[in-house]
Amino acid sequence: MFNFLTSRRTIRQYTNEQIPTDLLQNMLQAAAQSSNTGNMQAYSVVVSTDTEIKNLLAPAHFNQPMVAQAPVVLTFCADFNRFTQWCEQRDAQPGYANFQSFMAAAVDAVIFAQTFAVAAETAGLGICYLGTTTYNAQEIIDVLQLPQLVVPVTTITLGYPAHEPPVTDRLPIRSVVHAERYQPFDAADIDALYEEKEALQQYKQFVADNKKQTLAQVFTDVRYTQKNNEFFSEKFLQALAQQGFM
Amino acid sequence: MFNFLTSRRTIRQYTNEQIPTDLLQNMLQAAAQSSNTGNMQAYSVVVSTDTEIKNLLAPAHFNQPMVAQAPVVLTFCADFNRFTQWCEQRDAQPGYANFQSFMAAAVDAVIFAQTFAVAAETAGLGICYLGTTTYNAQEIIDVLQLPQLVVPVTTITLGYPAHEPPVTDRLPIRSVVHAERYQPFDAADIDALYEEKEALQQYKQFVADNKKQTLAQVFTDVRYTQKNNEFFSEKFLQALAQQGFM
Repeated sequence: MFNFLTSRRTIRQYTNEQIPTDLLQNMLQAAAQSSNTGNMQAYSVVVSTDTEIKNLLAPAHFNQPMVAQAPVVLTFCADFNRFTQWCEQRDAQPGYANFQSFMAAAVDAVIFAQTFAVAAETAGLGICYLGTTTYNAQEIIDVLQLPQLVVPVTTITLGYPAHEPPVTDRLPIRSVVHAERYQPFDAADIDALYEEKEALQQYKQFVADNKKQTLAQVFTDVRYTQKNNEFFSEKFLQALAQQGFM
Repeated sequence: MFNFLTSRRTIRQYTNEQIPTDLLQNMLQAAAQSSNTGNMQAYSVVVSTDTEIKNLLAPAHFNQPMVAQAPVVLTFCADFNRFTQWCEQRDAQPGYANFQSFMAAAVDAVIFAQTFAVAAETAGLGICYLGTTTYNAQEIIDVLQLPQLVVPVTTITLGYPAHEPPVTDRLPIRSVVHAERYQPFDAADIDALYEEKEALQQYKQFVADNKKQTLAQVFTDVRYTQKNNEFFSEKFLQALAQQGFM
């Protein structure tokens, strides 16, 4: 029943085929029907297809090739700007320049994005999320001219698949599901949860290529380092403040 | 093609029918196949079915009746605890006690939650998101015994529908979609975007019931006030700090 969800794979290479305008419109419409906080729809998406704009966005995503290559780049934003403007035009005192409103809007934006992703994959399109969005939010704000109370939360690159990578491995489902209350893992549990992943040839190669001893070290020393995480934490908090959410 | 997404409605009343264990398991498995940051799977879900635990969770959600009544309450969390523990057991120095890591994990948790919601609705179940999760995160942390680097981000109540409310109205799609760059709205645009919503009988009634002049005032003065938003902003930032993410 859930084959349409379990058979998915992230697509990073796209054909030149353009996405029909009404298909894109229908997918956005479908995504907008998903849940959101108080039906305020405190989100928006900037749909960029122009080569110049995609090229301007690319550095904010560390020049990952998907950004310039994808026919469409969608930047999903927490957005209390439109709602605030409506309040002001209706003799109402908006109170959304704060962190809680950002969180509600960010959750809404991601729900909207993921429903869009499911719609796209159902239509035979391929997508890739870009986590770099919250690293370089300020650069994206500048390129897309995002006004006050609008902050990018995630990005999806979209196009027809030009490759068919294998379905990505996941940890055993018990790694992420806790019954009733949180059930802490002991050392033996952790070993058991990660055993299968660590035994995969691709990850052994990955550890060797990075000249590390363990797969975890590739994450902590190369891919998601404390230094970078702390640097980009400050930067994102500044962007939130700059856009009026702190 | 997207009827399975556009025909959805939020379900707040559930029958007594229990959800088969393997159906629940299959939905969680399908959700886990969705995108996540660097395949770290920095999320978790606490699946509560026990009456006592649901009753303990209810006050954190302002006693909305869905919490106690739903057969299953799922609390979706940003979770760098398991990943950090794995790093520590593998001679790697984890660096995830910061805000950027929280954001990545929160995005992952919501992607996971929304794919779960789509799976559930595809299976004929009904869901309701609870935005109160980030209001009273600390109370939820206490009830579910969430350890360091685990913070609840959203909650879904789940069950077989006992009512069939109408599909909820949405703003015209151009309200949330911007071409190429953000296209600011002028006053006339805002009037046009909200015209249809404001004309709906249910909202006119809602304004009258709340003794307000405009629909926007119901939001700013009653439902999502500045005072509450600011209070719960502080509270959520404290919970993030307490769990080690600031």
